[in-house]
Amino acid sequence: MRRRVGVWLFGARGSVATTTIAGAAALNHGSPPAGVVTELPAFAGAGLVPLVQLVFGGHDVVETPLAKRVEQLVAGGVLPPGLAGLIAAELAEADRNIVLLPTGGSQYDVVRRMAEDIRAFALRNDLERVVAINVASTEAPYEIAGGVAELRAALDGSEVLPASVLGALAAFEAGAAYIDFTPSTSIRPAAVREWAVEKRLPYGGQDAKTGETLVKSVLAPMFAARALPVHAWSGTNLLGGGDGATLADPRAAESKSISKERGLAEMIGDVAGEVHIDYVDPMGDWKTAWDHVMFSGFLGVRMTLQFTWQGCDSALAAPLVLDLARLSALALERGHVGAMPFLGFYFKDPIESTEHSLVRQYDELLRWVHAC
Amino acid sequence: MRRRVGVWLFGARGSVATTTIAGAAALNHGSPPAGVVTELPAFAGAGLVPLVQLVFGGHDVVETPLAKRVEQLVAGGVLPPGLAGLIAAELAEADRNIVLLPTGGSQYDVVRRMAEDIRAFALRNDLERVVAINVASTEAPYEIAGGVAELRAALDGSEVLPASVLGALAAFEAGAAYIDFTPSTSIRPAAVREWAVEKRLPYGGQDAKTGETLVKSVLAPMFAARALPVHAWSGTNLLGGGDGATLADPRAAESKSISKERGLAEMIGDVAGEVHIDYVDPMGDWKTAWDHVMFSGFLGVRMTLQFTWQGCDSALAAPLVLDLARLSALALERGHVGAMPFLGFYFKDPIESTEHSLVRQYDELLRWVHAC
Amino acid sequence: MRRRVGVWLFGARGSVATTTIAGAAALNHGSPPAGVVTELPAFAGAGLVPLVQLVFGGHDVVETPLAKRVEQLVAGGVLPPGLAGLIAAELAEADRNIVLLPTGGSQYDVVRRMAEDIRAFALRNDLERVVAINVASTEAPYEIAGGVAELRAALDGSEVLPASVLGALAAFEAGAAYIDFTPSTSIRPAAVREWAVEKRLPYGGQDAKTGETLVKSVLAPMFAARALPVHAWSGTNLLGGGDGATLADPRAAESKSISKERGLAEMIGDVAGEVHIDYVDPMGDWKTAWDHVMFSGFLGVRMTLQFTWQGCDSALAAPLVLDLARLSALALERGHVGAMPFLGFYFKDPIESTEHSLVRQYDELLRWVHAC
Amino acid sequence: MRRRVGVWLFGARGSVATTTIAGAAALNHGSPPAGVVTELPAFAGAGLVPLVQLVFGGHDVVETPLAKRVEQLVAGGVLPPGLAGLIAAELAEADRNIVLLPTGGSQYDVVRRMAEDIRAFALRNDLERVVAINVASTEAPYEIAGGVAELRAALDGSEVLPASVLGALAAFEAGAAYIDFTPSTSIRPAAVREWAVEKRLPYGGQDAKTGETLVKSVLAPMFAARALPVHAWSGTNLLGGGDGATLADPRAAESKSISKERGLAEMIGDVAGEVHIDYVDPMGDWKTAWDHVMFSGFLGVRMTLQFTWQGCDSALAAPLVLDLARLSALALERGHVGAMPFLGFYFKDPIESTEHSLVRQYDELLRWVHAC
Repeated sequence: MRRRVGVWLFGARGSVATTTIAGAAALNHGSPPAGVVTELPAFAGAGLVPLVQLVFGGHDVVETPLAKRVEQLVAGGVLPPGLAGLIAAELAEADRNIVLLPTGGSQYDVVRRMAEDIRAFALRNDLERVVAINVASTEAPYEIAGGVAELRAALDGSEVLPASVLGALAAFEAGAAYIDFTPSTSIRPAAVREWAVEKRLPYGGQDAKTGETLVKSVLAPMFAARALPVHAWSGTNLLGGGDGATLADPRAAESKSISKERGLAEMIGDVAGEVHIDYVDPMGDWKTAWDHVMFSGFLGVRMTLQFTWQGCDSALAAPLVLDLARLSALALERGHVGAMPFLGFYFKDPIESTEHSLVRQYDELLRWVHAC
Repeated sequence: MRRRVGVWLFGARGSVATTTIAGAAALNHGSPPAGVVTELPAFAGAGLVPLVQLVFGGHDVVETPLAKRVEQLVAGGVLPPGLAGLIAAELAEADRNIVLLPTGGSQYDVVRRMAEDIRAFALRNDLERVVAINVASTEAPYEIAGGVAELRAALDGSEVLPASVLGALAAFEAGAAYIDFTPSTSIRPAAVREWAVEKRLPYGGQDAKTGETLVKSVLAPMFAARALPVHAWSGTNLLGGGDGATLADPRAAESKSISKERGLAEMIGDVAGEVHIDYVDPMGDWKTAWDHVMFSGFLGVRMTLQFTWQGCDSALAAPLVLDLARLSALALERGHVGAMPFLGFYFKDPIESTEHSLVRQYDELLRWVHAC
Repeated sequence: MRRRVGVWLFGARGSVATTTIAGAAALNHGSPPAGVVTELPAFAGAGLVPLVQLVFGGHDVVETPLAKRVEQLVAGGVLPPGLAGLIAAELAEADRNIVLLPTGGSQYDVVRRMAEDIRAFALRNDLERVVAINVASTEAPYEIAGGVAELRAALDGSEVLPASVLGALAAFEAGAAYIDFTPSTSIRPAAVREWAVEKRLPYGGQDAKTGETLVKSVLAPMFAARALPVHAWSGTNLLGGGDGATLADPRAAESKSISKERGLAEMIGDVAGEVHIDYVDPMGDWKTAWDHVMFSGFLGVRMTLQFTWQGCDSALAAPLVLDLARLSALALERGHVGAMPFLGFYFKDPIESTEHSLVRQYDELLRWVHAC
Repeated sequence: MRRRVGVWLFGARGSVATTTIAGAAALNHGSPPAGVVTELPAFAGAGLVPLVQLVFGGHDVVETPLAKRVEQLVAGGVLPPGLAGLIAAELAEADRNIVLLPTGGSQYDVVRRMAEDIRAFALRNDLERVVAINVASTEAPYEIAGGVAELRAALDGSEVLPASVLGALAAFEAGAAYIDFTPSTSIRPAAVREWAVEKRLPYGGQDAKTGETLVKSVLAPMFAARALPVHAWSGTNLLGGGDGATLADPRAAESKSISKERGLAEMIGDVAGEVHIDYVDPMGDWKTAWDHVMFSGFLGVRMTLQFTWQGCDSALAAPLVLDLARLSALALERGHVGAMPFLGFYFKDPIESTEHSLVRQYDELLRWVHAC
């Protein structure tokens, strides 16, 4: 009756990954599961793998020990003081399962070696199944044309493919489910999706909605349901930390903006207004978003709604990573193949779905969970 | 194929009623139906009475002509300049259908005379059916014990019953559906509800959600769906105008606060924080609400969400009055008897329902509309 | 005892100019002088020209009658309904004093013809003195090197100089004081300033502070006076209307941003954070600014201050134009030559001054006014 | 060349006192003096006592060691982690100087014993002078009529006088300067002030401005200087912690509200709007204030300014306690007798001053500091 599930994280020493690993350990020591949706009573009885049976590993390009990363996150107010001591054993175990991203050889070689890392992780830890989740830095947008054959050729060629694509392929080669928590290229190209289907594996994403977009995904349906025309929706996001530094690169920010804007347009149509993502170094791991919505009521009277969201992204993201690991493990168990649109609840840019209303997405998720 | 429907307004010369009557006329002259939910494509084909076939009348305690009231609302920025001239004929027609609230005799006599006024309105305008809607000032809370028999006795006694109760009974006596758009007593007592059932009539309410509570009804389910514990929810409402002056009376404000707080508790449980309703005379017909929500994420990290809503209550309420008139007319046509919980979408304190999530309420309303 | 003063506006049919002319007329009909600083009791006895003795004229590139522009501003909620009728005579008088900007010939010819227009205005209206104020659209930044001699040569050359420079020179040629209400080039070049001094005339500016920067100019000194280190100051400005459309051009926005940022740096040093200026067409003549300030208290605890300003720029600017006309007329009367740093109270980028604290600027202004 | 100055705190184990004592120690260990106004360059050369020469003691009704209180404030995010160890010696020293408030006997006896405690503190620590500062919980308002003779009689009578009055008298009996950091009764009665003058001692207060009122004291002068009429100013303060619990008592809140509202009325006259102080337990030591200001511009156009302040009161208050100790010691040194209106910069309800503009108060303080 073991049934251990592996969670393979691309970017395994980053803030989201560290918070996920540390948080799972803290929950096992008795912390209340705030933010873990699959711990809500509504999910009971669905046969999800218990949190205590998740085993963490992953790839990263740095070797900073997790204990060190935890200390940094404690200093930044993301994790509670005193945590590192309590969960030292779990951090050490995860450290042993995190390996450096392979380099050298063709890109195909890299994919193969990454897949071997994942398989070795499963074998070493006696895992029933593995879910791979991309929590690495956001990449710039990238187009890949053609099908699996062209992609295979490209892997042996000189065109430098995005790291997220290599990661997704490695997951599929290793028989793992794949989730993209970011807006990177990964499973966007048709060829990558076909690859997953050939391997009879599920995939999901993209770009977890944890803050401003989360709030938008309940406010926009409100305006729609009340027939209130929205004229302009403007937003400014201030963030520091590693994520902020990445998004200070306009090309990475472009990936993020595309994800962010898709939902609004699909919920209420095209409206005026821009979305800014500002890197503000002193904000550290915290994010503040201000949104200004201009709408009109009866006979065209102009009204406004503004909101300010002040959150800590890693602390909002980490419990969702746990959810996605458990839900994807269930999909694997059920033999689900291809896109998982029923996970749209978690994403700004839900794969193969145009539903962005959070409540409807939640209800859809619950229906799938209890479908068997 | 006439099928005209009467809309009988208690408080027929108030801001909400005037905006409703003027707005319906403006729509018939080609204004876009912003805020009228039943004009959304999703409601097409349900056989709702066309807006142009609504006929307005009602009771009030003052005789200010509607044209004068429209002028005041134009000056307050609620209605667009130039409207009064365009819709002069419709205002004059409605003026003829608005009568003074009867006084003198027993309370039972008052009810009978009010019912006669409603029946005369139906006859004079050749109406197929009538929906009575209470848009008068909010009353203080009032308890009525016992059943129909006790209520009949009380009507002939010396205890002064709330005006909203007399209005509801008059509606039922006249064969009209009844909606309470306010948090007053009206249909709260079991005896009043039994009276409706005896007459085989539908009723609905209470306390339209148009601003702060509307936003709460989408934000609270967001926190619930994401398993984010809310620790405190505080709100301050600033409003002027007649509504503000009424709510400056702490006893009337109590009715409003009870309605306002019910939904939050049912959506996310008891949390710290107060709700203030401040009368700020210079705000006129405009309302500003600021809400501060303190919640925690993973491992207890504290985060906040604040919003500021700046709206014009009458302009938000009026299109909903039109919706409720059309939907209640449909309920009458379908022979629905008793409470209409499927109208919960419109109310802070939805009768015979504990569902407060706006999106779920909307879906439930649509299911009922298309149920036949 | 006449003592009439001319106010020559560059951009005389724009929103600020129209609001100024219409507002001055409304004040003469009895409107209270909200926003006119020089009408405060503290300015009494200083011998400022009465508002009723101001006469308006100017240059523009369009010929739309002011009455039409007033109608547009009434529709946009900037001016009160019913105003146009009341002040029809004053608008017609101003219309007669507004002429098309001359074109053709060398730039020197244009300056000479503009100066003639101003002198003709003074003669025709029997004016004691004239103050010229630039309220035209913001230009892109432009550098002019050298002194008066080089500038004279450039006026006869093929290099296209900014319109604001030609306007300033025309004012000086006509013996008028000059104020730049915008961040354009105008009096920035040393050569233009020398030109004014040669003509023994005063000049002032630049870039009126009416909204976000006004608030900054009291908040930043607060942090400084309380020794609270500010780490980041971020701002987003949403605006529509003509001003918004101009600033949607990144080169014009650059002029504005330079002005906006100067004060903050001089008040509290360099801090992180960006300032966005977004053109949001549906905002019309209204502007909303949100600012987020991150600072720390004792022992480094991080705190925040946010503000949201919702104002109508033209209605904030117009009374300041009246102030500047009166104050500059006083400077002319006193024979002041060169820069007027004592007008820094009005500007984001105060000429020959590094004082940005609004209260200190106000006290300095009052001292100058009462200096004789 | 010793010149050590004693700081005697009433409420010496409260949050403000603990943060003050811990903060002074941290500064002596090299923390930057954020928030300490008297460390600004502008105060150099004024002969203020160096921070390192301040010695702390005081009265309290509890005996919780300061080290324990520091731990609690670290947990609440007020003080940085790791502080307690660094400053253990200083905390222990202060602990030795803090004594229980005497009880029993007549009130006059209590005053005498309190004065003896202060004198003993001075003697034991070889202090040149002592400044007593009230940082105890806010009391309900209390009226004391008559002069010193009546007050002496009352001290021996059965009427229970506020603790803050006994503290002020004890300070004067011990030859100490006295500052009220709270809005309590203390130095409000004429008799208490006469007592100070008889003893040739200075006193100052009341009610430190650290958050919402601080911001008001720069925004209100802005509206006044720009001649913009303010119609309504509404505020909601959310706070937890001990201060919040005290202010949840409506009688204590009344003292606070009186202080808070005085400045606004003196700066811009009477305006509509209420100020709420809500106890929100989960806020802990943090405070959030939201203010909404409705004003009008030219020709009556309505505009708004809102701000949200999120601060930690103790961390804002503590450096001001250090300032007030140093400045009052200077006043003692200079032989100043009676009220110290030049300290108005620090207070919501500045004694013997009607100036509330922060910048003018700052300039006045600097003038006094450099007056010799």
